[in-house]
Amino acid sequence: MQPGNPAVDTADVSALLERGRTLSTPVLRAAVDRLAPPMDTVAAYHFGWIDAHGNPTDADSGKAVRPALALMSAEAAGAAPEVGIPGAVAVELVHNFSLLHDDLMDGDEQRRHRDTVWKVHGPAQAILVGDALSALANEMLLELGTVEAGRATRRLTTANRKLIDGQAQDISYEHRERVTVEECLEMEGNKTGALLACAASIGAVLAGCDDRTADKLEEYGYHLGLAFQAVDDLLGIWGDPEATGKQTWSDLRQRKKSLPVVAALAAGGPASERLGALLAADAKSTDFDTFSEEEFATRAALIEEAGGREWTSQEARRQHAVAIAALNEVDMPARVRDQFAALADFVVVRKR
Amino acid sequence: MQPGNPAVDTADVSALLERGRTLSTPVLRAAVDRLAPPMDTVAAYHFGWIDAHGNPTDADSGKAVRPALALMSAEAAGAAPEVGIPGAVAVELVHNFSLLHDDLMDGDEQRRHRDTVWKVHGPAQAILVGDALSALANEMLLELGTVEAGRATRRLTTANRKLIDGQAQDISYEHRERVTVEECLEMEGNKTGALLACAASIGAVLAGCDDRTADKLEEYGYHLGLAFQAVDDLLGIWGDPEATGKQTWSDLRQRKKSLPVVAALAAGGPASERLGALLAADAKSTDFDTFSEEEFATRAALIEEAGGREWTSQEARRQHAVAIAALNEVDMPARVRDQFAALADFVVVRKR
Repeated sequence: MQPGNPAVDTADVSALLERGRTLSTPVLRAAVDRLAPPMDTVAAYHFGWIDAHGNPTDADSGKAVRPALALMSAEAAGAAPEVGIPGAVAVELVHNFSLLHDDLMDGDEQRRHRDTVWKVHGPAQAILVGDALSALANEMLLELGTVEAGRATRRLTTANRKLIDGQAQDISYEHRERVTVEECLEMEGNKTGALLACAASIGAVLAGCDDRTADKLEEYGYHLGLAFQAVDDLLGIWGDPEATGKQTWSDLRQRKKSLPVVAALAAGGPASERLGALLAADAKSTDFDTFSEEEFATRAALIEEAGGREWTSQEARRQHAVAIAALNEVDMPARVRDQFAALADFVVVRKR
Repeated sequence: MQPGNPAVDTADVSALLERGRTLSTPVLRAAVDRLAPPMDTVAAYHFGWIDAHGNPTDADSGKAVRPALALMSAEAAGAAPEVGIPGAVAVELVHNFSLLHDDLMDGDEQRRHRDTVWKVHGPAQAILVGDALSALANEMLLELGTVEAGRATRRLTTANRKLIDGQAQDISYEHRERVTVEECLEMEGNKTGALLACAASIGAVLAGCDDRTADKLEEYGYHLGLAFQAVDDLLGIWGDPEATGKQTWSDLRQRKKSLPVVAALAAGGPASERLGALLAADAKSTDFDTFSEEEFATRAALIEEAGGREWTSQEARRQHAVAIAALNEVDMPARVRDQFAALADFVVVRKR
């Protein structure tokens, strides 16, 4: 498969994402309403349901790939998509717990074109509401009171732990001069792969599938996550700020050792060496914060020249292929398999 | 019962606490060892197993009331104390998750005579390791893979949510001029009662007890928690810094609207009014941070004069009585019942 290939039926993927959002959002909102004030308001702000003054808004609430996956996952196990709803909501809650905490730890001031929670409501609320969403996720599932819900909670907890491991790695890598491509992939697998793995299997687990099916669906989701993250890393440097809602050269400004950077540094050759020397100097620079657009553009050009951009593009396609291979090992209705494949295609060609 | 009454067999309680610590600590350490670096080290520092330089220490790791309760709880349901160990560890993990996050949110620089984690390792590690301990708690239980473990996780999750609600209330009360006694008790029930409730029932739940038994044991633990917190509030103002490891007038320095303060303000009369006027002025004061010992001593004396100290002492005894009444509604071996009662007595007479 090639990104941009006509096999990607964008209309179809939009419908899947829309269905995930439509079926899960009311349940998500009801769950968030259970939070004690002011946490309910802070969470509603984070999800883009209200603005900083408490007025209802219709802000961009993200792509909703995870809820879509959770519902498709229930269908993969022969159940109605609705069976996956509590899983979709629980995964979204854990995802947003990690966004709230990560934005605070990373000092990120913007997300989805809006000020982050810690910026608007302060660090304590960001910590607290993150904690509350994480606990709520388990509560939602365990309230179902079934053996399947217990299994789903266990898988979600494992994903939650990996998210935390990934964030720990991300933070520690920022202080290191060199990070290997393998370390970067491991970190991204933890930060992005683990929860998409859980999303892709949780509906089937709730529908009572066997462990092998759940594991294979997790494998699909994990590699989909790595493809997703490779694309995210490309967008973090070369993305259109209008589309991504992030600053230009966003990841470079944060000195992120993302895949294109790490791959460019590992490539060797003159551009790679010049990049390495520049980034090493940047790490010690006291006026990094006042760098101009041109300075970041120079670094981006070196990353591209050293092959980091092309390598990351190819990596997205490699991970995509592994995801599809895992999918093909699970017995499921052909229509559902096609939907999983279309979603994987979408992840690789997206612009935001 | 009267605190200080000879019914409290201190040796017996020490043995119970020691047993809880001895049986749960190796399992807790093994759980913490599963954290990815540097989180394992940060957690080990928090638990007092190593110092800030990574050298092994034997620091005060807390009273360990919760592990003791979890083991006794298994015995209450006729099982061996060991059945309660995963519950004891899970509860300790959640307790320490909340300490890590609360210390950061509250800006507390000291705990158990040592610098807090955010002070030594930075805010990001405090957030991250707190998150990790909370997830690890669920993982520990769910790995047991039994129906009982699912029920235990559900109760622990409820307690976790209440901890968060209580911290949210605590933070919001700090910005309010007046807090009612009822609001204060609700907040303390969430912050302290809920997790002791879980500790007192989790062993029995893991041993397969019925819901009514678990609920009654929770009731014992909840009111034990409120008694515990009333004593803590007394120690937070009049405690011996040598024994508590906190600064003199610790809670007053933090403008905490703890039970003695709230009760004194609600009492009416001249001392209550003078206290109210002083605290209202303090809230707006710009040099509160430079207050002398004498200024805090004046406030403490007014709280006592208005009856806040005596009311809180009596409240500890009232909650103790409710705890014992709940205990008496559960069928259990007489020896175990006596131990629960002795622990409740200990909580009310402790000096640290």
